[in-house]
Amino acid sequence: MQHMTHIEDLGMEGVHAVVEQAMTWKRQHPGRHLEDVLLGMLFFNPSLRTRASFEAVMARAGGQSMVLEAGKGAWAMEHRDGVAMDGERPEHVREAAAVLSRYVDVLAVRAFAGLMDDAEDEADPVMRAFRAHATVPVISMESAREHLCQGLADVLTLRERLGPLQGQPVTLSWAPHIKPLPKAVPNSFLLSAAAAGCQVRVAHPPGFELPAGVRRQAEALAAQSGGEVQYGHEQLEAMAGSRAVYAKAWGPVLPLADEQAAAAMMKAHPDWRVGAGQLAPASADAFLMHCLPVRRDLEVEAALLDSGASAVVDQAENRFHVQRVLLDMAMQSIAGRREVA
Amino acid sequence: MQHMTHIEDLGMEGVHAVVEQAMTWKRQHPGRHLEDVLLGMLFFNPSLRTRASFEAVMARAGGQSMVLEAGKGAWAMEHRDGVAMDGERPEHVREAAAVLSRYVDVLAVRAFAGLMDDAEDEADPVMRAFRAHATVPVISMESAREHLCQGLADVLTLRERLGPLQGQPVTLSWAPHIKPLPKAVPNSFLLSAAAAGCQVRVAHPPGFELPAGVRRQAEALAAQSGGEVQYGHEQLEAMAGSRAVYAKAWGPVLPLADEQAAAAMMKAHPDWRVGAGQLAPASADAFLMHCLPVRRDLEVEAALLDSGASAVVDQAENRFHVQRVLLDMAMQSIAGRREVA
Amino acid sequence: MQHMTHIEDLGMEGVHAVVEQAMTWKRQHPGRHLEDVLLGMLFFNPSLRTRASFEAVMARAGGQSMVLEAGKGAWAMEHRDGVAMDGERPEHVREAAAVLSRYVDVLAVRAFAGLMDDAEDEADPVMRAFRAHATVPVISMESAREHLCQGLADVLTLRERLGPLQGQPVTLSWAPHIKPLPKAVPNSFLLSAAAAGCQVRVAHPPGFELPAGVRRQAEALAAQSGGEVQYGHEQLEAMAGSRAVYAKAWGPVLPLADEQAAAAMMKAHPDWRVGAGQLAPASADAFLMHCLPVRRDLEVEAALLDSGASAVVDQAENRFHVQRVLLDMAMQSIAGRREVA
Repeated sequence: MQHMTHIEDLGMEGVHAVVEQAMTWKRQHPGRHLEDVLLGMLFFNPSLRTRASFEAVMARAGGQSMVLEAGKGAWAMEHRDGVAMDGERPEHVREAAAVLSRYVDVLAVRAFAGLMDDAEDEADPVMRAFRAHATVPVISMESAREHLCQGLADVLTLRERLGPLQGQPVTLSWAPHIKPLPKAVPNSFLLSAAAAGCQVRVAHPPGFELPAGVRRQAEALAAQSGGEVQYGHEQLEAMAGSRAVYAKAWGPVLPLADEQAAAAMMKAHPDWRVGAGQLAPASADAFLMHCLPVRRDLEVEAALLDSGASAVVDQAENRFHVQRVLLDMAMQSIAGRREVA
Repeated sequence: MQHMTHIEDLGMEGVHAVVEQAMTWKRQHPGRHLEDVLLGMLFFNPSLRTRASFEAVMARAGGQSMVLEAGKGAWAMEHRDGVAMDGERPEHVREAAAVLSRYVDVLAVRAFAGLMDDAEDEADPVMRAFRAHATVPVISMESAREHLCQGLADVLTLRERLGPLQGQPVTLSWAPHIKPLPKAVPNSFLLSAAAAGCQVRVAHPPGFELPAGVRRQAEALAAQSGGEVQYGHEQLEAMAGSRAVYAKAWGPVLPLADEQAAAAMMKAHPDWRVGAGQLAPASADAFLMHCLPVRRDLEVEAALLDSGASAVVDQAENRFHVQRVLLDMAMQSIAGRREVA
Repeated sequence: MQHMTHIEDLGMEGVHAVVEQAMTWKRQHPGRHLEDVLLGMLFFNPSLRTRASFEAVMARAGGQSMVLEAGKGAWAMEHRDGVAMDGERPEHVREAAAVLSRYVDVLAVRAFAGLMDDAEDEADPVMRAFRAHATVPVISMESAREHLCQGLADVLTLRERLGPLQGQPVTLSWAPHIKPLPKAVPNSFLLSAAAAGCQVRVAHPPGFELPAGVRRQAEALAAQSGGEVQYGHEQLEAMAGSRAVYAKAWGPVLPLADEQAAAAMMKAHPDWRVGAGQLAPASADAFLMHCLPVRRDLEVEAALLDSGASAVVDQAENRFHVQRVLLDMAMQSIAGRREVA
């Protein structure tokens, strides 16, 4: 049984295999390869693309899906061990994961970062609890540490537009926002692009460093793939000659001495908004990436989003294609056994 | 590619065609005519009948559907162009419509009136944004200006009970409520019944005139169909000899000089509650219509709703039948092409 | 047409038949026995297991389901007759039940106890309104009085582990909580286990008596089945020699003279928390039951839940198996007729 929640579940070769399979199936529909498969999707946080694209995969591949929302339609959930459950959360992940595993074939979970402490978010406690207690494959729909499906869709988008990715310069640029956002998307872009062999340049203002463990892991993947990882505080410098520019807001290094300072930090660099000016030093055919939702004229200039240089809708479509492969791999990993039949 | 959001998408002949096809298919089930079709439903507002009837159509016709709720399970959405997105809405319709078009075959959207200004609601900005940015057919599940599916179901109900509709007198009567409601349902009943050739009598207290653009359009459709449109402030007079009485609460002409006055205006005419007394001047076989949900003993007398004169449950069932036709027409309009296959 | 909302719909023989059929189908999958069946699920309250297990049944058996949430995605609903609907609830069960019956083949409803008055909850006004106004079979997903599906799953769990249930001693023990909970689950365990012939021992602190009508009904079922029902205030005494211990928090007898006292009463007996000590006087092979969600180290000791003595996940799985049978019986009861076809 194979969980698909972190890039470590795939490794460099797995990233490559998913992306190539997705390209193949994008050209040639694989048919009803998930027939009789039931996917359970459990959301701790909102979703548009993730939910719609997973539901679409199941519908197109002959399977079925159900959507559960913790704390809304379903019960709020505790994930910590060793606490007396006398608060607001009536259900524990231990039971929820075990029970849902009796009903569904694959369990997909979305649980955003807590945004209190980078170290805690890197440890990814909610997703780890589901991995520990589910008896069917768990797929991440974004966790505190990583957004694996997004990272894979991003690499597929790069691969389709740039061909072989070995040594290709791509830039991940921090962008302004009104409030701190999770680091899962930039983490996963960094990890996936490094695994794919890109020269990944990460640019952000001081104080927005990505978590140390993620950076170490990206460097190890780059070493393995022949890629490279660079960090800097100069946005335009990081753009020079880049083939793709990934704009993304993320929050400061946590914890902060002054918790209230985070929102101000997000607004303190309006000149980092990504627009035509930021793309000027990049390659003439450079394109814009963003995971969506994007705040127009705050993170990214609306005119750039509406231009032919934007790849954001293709990125979103590619969520469908990589998730179809992940679901297929998850089912392969349990071929021959089903809990409820 | 054909959107189905406003009566102008169908015209007089289209209204006729949908209703006749619905009658045919109501007698003889068309089978799995939506096999492999995936419908995306996006709600900005609550729904019972609309959601259930669209899901039922897809299930009965061999297709599949997914439900997304903006601002709840999915992100809150901005539809205006040219605004910096630094407020409460993280996603823009431009991206949402384009992205969902990559996952689904048809996109159905519900976005109620803003209830600040009739002119803005007539312009129907949210639904127009989805039409502009979706690359698959858009079907309205009620917008600020119109509730196309309801209007068609209403005409189907009239047609089933009255036979040919040419010249048939039917009354749309304003009803009391505790707060102002959107005008989309009365607008669509007026437009559809006029397109079907009825003599439509609209009765309401002064200050509750329907939007001028809708009235002009209804008059043009009536001129084309051989129908007629009349307006008046005398409820019982408008009932005389009517074959059907449509009770519906809607809000006052907007904007109001005093915004707070609207609720009081809705409560100022309790004698407009539709009951047996109101139906007395109507034809002996006149029946009651309402789009539901209906507030018993506020808008309509409970005894009338529970009597044999009520057609409200049949109206609701007819939502299913007309929507089945609209979905089939939408798919016909894109025969041969699918974004994600 | 057969509704499945209360144990009186099945009787002693029906309980037996459902459990035996569920055991058979658990060994041998019955295939797509619900093909072309559309289940509508309407929730007034949250759910994890119930929703997921019903959706799973429909998916596994070839049918389809839709989920509606009153007061969230769908309108808030009034169930009382004779009230002017000028409050917060725009839709009446009369219309909702009748309309949904036009779209779906079976209607499942969850409506928790009001927790103001035991007599009112015993009368089960919301579920009774759906029974009265739906024109398709209604299945309860928990109502004010009973949680029929849970009770049946509980008996299936007992039956699988204990063999023939005639005379088997099983204990239902009250447990502490932070707030009063509904009595539907203990009511249904008592009723179902009595119908199955068990010797049911109910233990709770004074002031937590189950409703008189439920107790009388349980005694009548026990008389018929050769079972027995006992009540007591001594937890350990009730455990002596028991084969299974069902831990469950429920609220005090209502109404209370002082409404505010209920929460304090729930916290006043922390020694009733069920753990290894409570199971000590029971049979050496006794197992723990709970309907879930369970609050760890509040209602039940976490260590007991994580031990091999816990049957709680099997109980949850058994929801799937008994509901599959109930849905099949509901469809058998209307064989040959469908409202929307």
